[in-house]
Amino acid sequence: MKFTVQDIATALGARVEGNGALRIDRAAEPDDADAGALALAMDPKYGEGLTRGAARAAILWEGADWQAMGLEAAIFVPRPRYAMSGLTRLMDPGPDIAPGIHPMTVIDPSARIGEGAAIGPFVAIGAGAVIGPRARIASHVSIAEGAQIGADALLMQGARIGARVRIGDRFIAQPGAAIGGDGFSFVTPEKSGVEQIRETLGARAAQEAQSWTRIHSLGAVRIGDDVEIGANSTIDRGTIRDTTVGNGTKIDNLVQIGHNSQVGDHCLMCGLVGVAGSVRIGNRVVLGGQVGVSDNIFIGDDVIAGGATKIFTNAPAGRVLLGSPAVKMETQMEINKAVRRLPRLFAQVAELQKAVFKRAGD
Amino acid sequence: MKFTVQDIATALGARVEGNGALRIDRAAEPDDADAGALALAMDPKYGEGLTRGAARAAILWEGADWQAMGLEAAIFVPRPRYAMSGLTRLMDPGPDIAPGIHPMTVIDPSARIGEGAAIGPFVAIGAGAVIGPRARIASHVSIAEGAQIGADALLMQGARIGARVRIGDRFIAQPGAAIGGDGFSFVTPEKSGVEQIRETLGARAAQEAQSWTRIHSLGAVRIGDDVEIGANSTIDRGTIRDTTVGNGTKIDNLVQIGHNSQVGDHCLMCGLVGVAGSVRIGNRVVLGGQVGVSDNIFIGDDVIAGGATKIFTNAPAGRVLLGSPAVKMETQMEINKAVRRLPRLFAQVAELQKAVFKRAGD
Amino acid sequence: MKFTVQDIATALGARVEGNGALRIDRAAEPDDADAGALALAMDPKYGEGLTRGAARAAILWEGADWQAMGLEAAIFVPRPRYAMSGLTRLMDPGPDIAPGIHPMTVIDPSARIGEGAAIGPFVAIGAGAVIGPRARIASHVSIAEGAQIGADALLMQGARIGARVRIGDRFIAQPGAAIGGDGFSFVTPEKSGVEQIRETLGARAAQEAQSWTRIHSLGAVRIGDDVEIGANSTIDRGTIRDTTVGNGTKIDNLVQIGHNSQVGDHCLMCGLVGVAGSVRIGNRVVLGGQVGVSDNIFIGDDVIAGGATKIFTNAPAGRVLLGSPAVKMETQMEINKAVRRLPRLFAQVAELQKAVFKRAGD
Repeated sequence: MKFTVQDIATALGARVEGNGALRIDRAAEPDDADAGALALAMDPKYGEGLTRGAARAAILWEGADWQAMGLEAAIFVPRPRYAMSGLTRLMDPGPDIAPGIHPMTVIDPSARIGEGAAIGPFVAIGAGAVIGPRARIASHVSIAEGAQIGADALLMQGARIGARVRIGDRFIAQPGAAIGGDGFSFVTPEKSGVEQIRETLGARAAQEAQSWTRIHSLGAVRIGDDVEIGANSTIDRGTIRDTTVGNGTKIDNLVQIGHNSQVGDHCLMCGLVGVAGSVRIGNRVVLGGQVGVSDNIFIGDDVIAGGATKIFTNAPAGRVLLGSPAVKMETQMEINKAVRRLPRLFAQVAELQKAVFKRAGD
Repeated sequence: MKFTVQDIATALGARVEGNGALRIDRAAEPDDADAGALALAMDPKYGEGLTRGAARAAILWEGADWQAMGLEAAIFVPRPRYAMSGLTRLMDPGPDIAPGIHPMTVIDPSARIGEGAAIGPFVAIGAGAVIGPRARIASHVSIAEGAQIGADALLMQGARIGARVRIGDRFIAQPGAAIGGDGFSFVTPEKSGVEQIRETLGARAAQEAQSWTRIHSLGAVRIGDDVEIGANSTIDRGTIRDTTVGNGTKIDNLVQIGHNSQVGDHCLMCGLVGVAGSVRIGNRVVLGGQVGVSDNIFIGDDVIAGGATKIFTNAPAGRVLLGSPAVKMETQMEINKAVRRLPRLFAQVAELQKAVFKRAGD
Repeated sequence: MKFTVQDIATALGARVEGNGALRIDRAAEPDDADAGALALAMDPKYGEGLTRGAARAAILWEGADWQAMGLEAAIFVPRPRYAMSGLTRLMDPGPDIAPGIHPMTVIDPSARIGEGAAIGPFVAIGAGAVIGPRARIASHVSIAEGAQIGADALLMQGARIGARVRIGDRFIAQPGAAIGGDGFSFVTPEKSGVEQIRETLGARAAQEAQSWTRIHSLGAVRIGDDVEIGANSTIDRGTIRDTTVGNGTKIDNLVQIGHNSQVGDHCLMCGLVGVAGSVRIGNRVVLGGQVGVSDNIFIGDDVIAGGATKIFTNAPAGRVLLGSPAVKMETQMEINKAVRRLPRLFAQVAELQKAVFKRAGD
């Protein structure tokens, strides 16, 4: 894989100075760059690294003096972080899956595989499954009966697509992602302790023996276009209706989405997020790592929750949340400050008590 | 799959009004119901949906006027949520695994598979494994040497059963569940920093280089009857004795149960719960999503912990917990209220200081 | 598997009293020990269990009177917990993987497998992969193109090693561990809501539609010697440089390490830890269960964070952390105490207000 500096600049819609014909074969951080690498130094703080590395070409911050840095060519981009997407897409070799269908696969004769598929070894595809054109399916993937996946899917090793799950175009599943496990839904013949506590906010009758009966999941999972699901993440099927994930939503590793939940478009969910059952999440919602969302609540459009925020109640559109229980970000920051000052506050109150009542605070 | 309304009512032990001979082929939410669907409208709030859908039959709340709703038949159930279990069990087609043993499997000749098994492709079963009658084992499952599983097991795609693990009847493993990984147990030749801090509650000697030596897991995992383990959840083997999970306990997705821990009967553990090592958990304990339980502690019978509760110390039977560190639910709710009012409290103390000492609170 | 008591003592560098020739075939807790078991009773609190079990030999605490306990032989060790590592290593039969390469595998002809390998069924190894001597690879493992793994690797069922990942000697991957998924890195053409909030600490312009463009991961993952990764844990590849994990670091189940992060040597990360992207973690760092680490921060050498600690900012070397947001352990313990006393503080301030201002606190 070889590119000229000009190739890359053209792909990024960016400006070249110097020798655009210079050939490079990989991208590198400035320190690690050898003569064949394009150094990535989009911020002045990376400038010094260039002097330690051996790059002859770099992507630079606007205004950088590339000639003084000893470079032969430079690319200038207006929004460096966005340029990374174009650059890395261009240079990603993609997974090595041979075209066609590996002989060591088990594909039901009734399954329909689109043209241009590349399917690796030990893949199992069930009856009636439909997979769009140009799918790349790595080893050990399972696609159960009746599942439908759109065009240009990329399913990495061991991804699991459950029965009757429907997925749009350009879907990406990282290794071990499990779409369509059964929902976690159990019921007791009589009211359970949890139901009592929800009604009474804490009190309950004497505990009695209780055992859990399973509510089966008749629904499936329905996923829009341009969705990516991270490694070992799990999305459960709905009880009656489908669990849904909207277009353009990106889900990180080890995220759990519970049964019946409805996630909107263009959301981001970072690692270890847990969304309980029957949650409605709007569009463009961003949940930081380890965020938790209680069941049966509503998260409005454009909500952003910082890492480890635990959301127990509805959140209106546009709210920025932090803390456990989640409150507005600025409120949580005030709370944090106040909490750190608590020991001093206790001392002050003791001093007041002594002055006012002539006794020490007990 | 076709049922009459009467079939369903009989299975649920429920009462029919209207045309019990009407045939339906699926369940649906009221809005989505077509003429072949049984609408689920067990609460008046779903009544309006019935007018938008096209259902001819429904399960209704007690007292609903089904004829005024234009229905031809109605089923009335005393506890709607419990009725869902019977209804969904009846209608669940179950996974499509062909009867018998798929030719593309690797089953050790010394393994014993009960009668009526359905085993999918790419399944590996080790030496001496014993699997009860009527097992349904989906693709890519592994069952290691010496594992024993009771009757009527359902193992979904890629579930992992480790060596010598013993499991009761009616076990369900969702995709990617991993039972019997090695415990996370390491030791340093000299006392480690963590051991020092546990003894001193914070202080420790100068840090020294230390490296971790592995304590192997000679124990296995022992699981009772009627247990279900969620997708990509993990239960580690014990060091000497087995890690155990009691009868009827249900575990959601992405839950971690550490080595040596002993979980009782009829517990529920929601998504992303983490139970450290050597924990004893009683019967009927319910842990909400993302709850954490420290190692070597004891959780009594009937404890309920709300979402994201972090339990660092023993919890007596019947306690309802919330917060981090976990306290009684009502205490945490008082704390939450107090914390939100802290900024005002600071202002009040400052005002008092001014009045009493003629100076502003610093 | 049969050992004499003397064999075991020799392996542990420990002292025997009594009949060192006694043969034992397993280790057991004192209560469960039969005549063939070596009872583990390294602390006086386990002494009573010995009287209930039937052990003839035991590992005992220093000073125990083994003859009075009716034992025929006893082993005395100076640091019992450390002795467990030697004892369990000796007695662990290891996974049952037949020597050689199972016929039902798909190994690219260009892959190089070291001598003495044992590779189970349904294993896929990609082009150019290099695996050191004496590897034990259980069923369903995938090792993608160009991956390199050192000597004496143990890869359990369904572990996933991504393309171009490089791993040192004595690597252990528990079932379902996924090394080398793509990083979770997305960018919007214009500044996203999250970027605005990071700059302004909460405020942002009117929300606009935004969609996420993928930054591909050109880097891989590089892992040192003597590393163990737990079941279903995930380590993402870096964007340009590799994500790295140092020598001797041990990672528990369901842990997420984000792209570009650099984890030092001899660290411990317990279950459900989440490390976001571009984090630098020093050596000998210990993160308790469910700890979270924000992106782009630095955790110094020898930092210890208690369970469920959420680290949002840099942590200097040697710091012991607790709480969310993380503070020094002793500070958090003061905060916890103060928070529990808050209701009383509110009452005291109300009383002061009444006394000073002749009115009740509102």
